[in-house]
Amino acid sequence: MTDSPAKKTKSDRTREAILEAARLLFAQKGYDGTTVRDIAAAAAIDPAMVIRYFGGKDALFARAADLDLRLPDLTTLPRHAVGEALVRHFLTVWEGDGGTIGLPIALRSAASNDLAAARLREIFATQVAPAIARLAGPDAPAVAGLVATQILGLAFTRYVLRLPPVVALPRERIVAEVGRSIQAYIDGARP
Amino acid sequence: MTDSPAKKTKSDRTREAILEAARLLFAQKGYDGTTVRDIAAAAAIDPAMVIRYFGGKDALFARAADLDLRLPDLTTLPRHAVGEALVRHFLTVWEGDGGTIGLPIALRSAASNDLAAARLREIFATQVAPAIARLAGPDAPAVAGLVATQILGLAFTRYVLRLPPVVALPRERIVAEVGRSIQAYIDGARP
Repeated sequence: MTDSPAKKTKSDRTREAILEAARLLFAQKGYDGTTVRDIAAAAAIDPAMVIRYFGGKDALFARAADLDLRLPDLTTLPRHAVGEALVRHFLTVWEGDGGTIGLPIALRSAASNDLAAARLREIFATQVAPAIARLAGPDAPAVAGLVATQILGLAFTRYVLRLPPVVALPRERIVAEVGRSIQAYIDGARP
Repeated sequence: MTDSPAKKTKSDRTREAILEAARLLFAQKGYDGTTVRDIAAAAAIDPAMVIRYFGGKDALFARAADLDLRLPDLTTLPRHAVGEALVRHFLTVWEGDGGTIGLPIALRSAASNDLAAARLREIFATQVAPAIARLAGPDAPAVAGLVATQILGLAFTRYVLRLPPVVALPRERIVAEVGRSIQAYIDGARP
């Protein structure tokens, strides 16, 4: 991300072309519907190079789905602002110019592929749950679960199912209203 | 549903065996991963009979996914009780003894199949949106969209992704907390 274009080697460019092709295909066709051969063809490269650079389809999927949610440290925020901050963070990641739409890609694949589903459960357990745990004490797993129903539901309906009124919702309205629901889950944590 | 066992003909039983096999396979493998041949094998019947009884895979999917949400008339409820009533209704349908887990089946398939996704958008437009419209006036499409992010997110995380803390949430806690979020979307309708 911080590399300047001048520093990029041919190998970097090849790696990026593969990753970009993989992201596009996984997003369109899901994990099961995408082959290493498809990715190689879209990147105009030999399939053997895809294996050499990324090891295989599973490892490439993990990279393409960009499974680092890059959650901010929620404890640095005023508690009442956490709900909106979380929604704003996810919308920025999903709709930003970096093409890092990893969670929607993972959701599409997780619906029909056990490996992708297991990865998504792992992301939840290692990234979302700990971030919530610092706010919600012993009841944190349930709170993190409730937060997940809303965040993943937003991603699923807006980017995977593309439900027209959800696609049409203005960003700031989502931040305000979905943020309020998430805030209520956090505020409702049982001692 | 109201047939007594005594009235069932052999043809009824065959139809039910096909439908049950289809539900199980669509739920486990999604639309794309299931063939008429698989369904026939699971029902111990000839594939031609599946076609004869149901016409084909698309029509069988529509039946297996039980796409009638059977929403109650929300206008007969006190307005403040609508959020909890909606969540309770969906949990009863999904976890009831009728095996009518249609929406979760449809969600799994919609993630990777355009036909299933189009059907789900149609269910939303013809069943959920009109039910909300009577409560939320001109802002109803946006409100129905927000409600969908939460209801479909609950179905996805609890039945498709099977996120452990969401699976573990007691039913009454879901009714109370998710119900409150949905109520807030309905109460927040803009005039």
